[in-house]
Amino acid sequence: MNKRTELSELGEFGVIERLTKSQQQTTNISTLMGVGDDCAAIMYDGKVTLVSSDCLVEGVHFDMAYTPLKHLGYKAATVNFSDIYACNGQPTQLLISLAVSNRYCVEALDELYEGLHLACQRYGVDLVGGDMASSNSGMFLSLTALGQCDKESMVRRSGAKVHDLICVSGNLGAAYAGLLVLQREKAVFLANPNSQPDLSDYQYVIERHLKPEAQKDIVKWLSDNAVLPTAMIDISDGLASETLHICKQSNVGCELYLDKLPVDYEASRTLEEFHILPDTGALNGGEDYELLFTINQNDYSKIQTNKDISVIGHITDSSCGCNLVTPQNTTIELKARGFNHYNREV
Amino acid sequence: MNKRTELSELGEFGVIERLTKSQQQTTNISTLMGVGDDCAAIMYDGKVTLVSSDCLVEGVHFDMAYTPLKHLGYKAATVNFSDIYACNGQPTQLLISLAVSNRYCVEALDELYEGLHLACQRYGVDLVGGDMASSNSGMFLSLTALGQCDKESMVRRSGAKVHDLICVSGNLGAAYAGLLVLQREKAVFLANPNSQPDLSDYQYVIERHLKPEAQKDIVKWLSDNAVLPTAMIDISDGLASETLHICKQSNVGCELYLDKLPVDYEASRTLEEFHILPDTGALNGGEDYELLFTINQNDYSKIQTNKDISVIGHITDSSCGCNLVTPQNTTIELKARGFNHYNREV
Repeated sequence: MNKRTELSELGEFGVIERLTKSQQQTTNISTLMGVGDDCAAIMYDGKVTLVSSDCLVEGVHFDMAYTPLKHLGYKAATVNFSDIYACNGQPTQLLISLAVSNRYCVEALDELYEGLHLACQRYGVDLVGGDMASSNSGMFLSLTALGQCDKESMVRRSGAKVHDLICVSGNLGAAYAGLLVLQREKAVFLANPNSQPDLSDYQYVIERHLKPEAQKDIVKWLSDNAVLPTAMIDISDGLASETLHICKQSNVGCELYLDKLPVDYEASRTLEEFHILPDTGALNGGEDYELLFTINQNDYSKIQTNKDISVIGHITDSSCGCNLVTPQNTTIELKARGFNHYNREV
Repeated sequence: MNKRTELSELGEFGVIERLTKSQQQTTNISTLMGVGDDCAAIMYDGKVTLVSSDCLVEGVHFDMAYTPLKHLGYKAATVNFSDIYACNGQPTQLLISLAVSNRYCVEALDELYEGLHLACQRYGVDLVGGDMASSNSGMFLSLTALGQCDKESMVRRSGAKVHDLICVSGNLGAAYAGLLVLQREKAVFLANPNSQPDLSDYQYVIERHLKPEAQKDIVKWLSDNAVLPTAMIDISDGLASETLHICKQSNVGCELYLDKLPVDYEASRTLEEFHILPDTGALNGGEDYELLFTINQNDYSKIQTNKDISVIGHITDSSCGCNLVTPQNTTIELKARGFNHYNREV
């Protein structure tokens, strides 16, 4: 009998590594960067084209019970732009492939596209194509964003050096807090369809989940202030998971200070309602689409002036491993407990 | 109550037109060509980057009962390369987004990727990235191919001129014939699981369906012989549908000669077994991934020397409409009867 290895045994990143390891050598001289970063990078005449694909699956990435289609379109676009910013590029074009069942009508797609167009307009991106098909159940979206940067300013995941400072934009855990609220409201609604939810105390965290923004302003600020990160990634799976990606690909270790993690007040209060420590939400929540990056210590004085950027740790030698430092100064190994696509009950 | 327009009322192309009409104006100067051709085209410094996305949905585009995963991977790649060739470009990079349910194991994805890698190797393309996710049912693939061409040699759908000759590569209807055989064998197998199918008489048509090739050699021949098509498209939905795309976007009419349509002997015999006229299979079958293109009459003598290219008609003034000419010299209006994604029973 043939061997059967469940996807959950390897996990998403293990599966990707296994499937793409034979493709480490590239054929085209224009292929500057392949599998294993936020974007692929293609170079023609010194200009780099960045390309990123992301897919969103109904019932996995979004639940129609509480996801307005306009927000879904907006989010599908911005999470792709986020990958381009994570390489220090500017998104310029977007393609969308869409498969929907006949449960969706034209007006529903109008709403989805309204969100897509709005995101494209806000981020200065052209929607240039894609594909449209039917599905037997649910909606599947796959978006590909293209962007540009100069070769000298492109930032990879693999450039972090020992003694670099680890920085993060904005705040963490809010998108996860918003998701928890929406899931609770859905359960309440299913139990009692006449219930009237009052979500006014959760507006910020819900918006962070349903309608995230990409960090255009941070990338612009870094450029305006001549700060070139040594490594960068966007936070889609959670701070812990993304930090480990940078450390693995840069072949370094790290120390993250738990009391430095930026958590918004509303997010913190909401997470506590669900008996989740704010730090845990920040580390493992995911979908914040903030930028995690490392900088040379010489840039510290510049970074200090931007209140939207927090220094949360530093890079160490790989022999030290990847660690969390608690306020009591004890050290805990950093582990990724973000979303595992192949470990769900379905 | 809100209006509900079924997707089937507008059809795939109607839906795309409606959703993208607000996006006709582009923001970035690098956006050379947006929605409405085989590829999007992006220009930096005189070099054109072509981008094409296609999605494949289990139960819609492929049936696991008779689609080996290796073939599926190969086909998913080549149909995207085909879009790049249709703009007279060379494919260089590929991204894949994949969502699968836990019905699939790692070994199944190994097979899928074996096909992808094989296609990439044969066509000289680098697999550079993508995304991987879970789905609640079935498999969904979305591939994005990137390619290159010089600005002067890029071919659009919209360049056909009155008196141009209409040409097609290879032969038509074989992929559809192969699909009919596979569907019949599936029905036989479901009725009697002990039946042993003998498919030796259908090898060519089955391969055309399961493992189509992109027309790399035709594009090379055109370039080597200095023939620049005035318009070009690849045949995914069927000759009739694609001819109408060229005519609509070039604002011209056409005459196609039924007795000039190239149909392979095995395809012809198979289609007749299913009581389908070979011409009908050639016009509406779809998934042949041959190239349909128009050339200036001055290039006729060159084209004549290539036995893999057939001249099947000519371009007329738009006032003449789009027509088929029968061997009896009667004229019938050309209509697209290819696959409509939103008109299926699901």
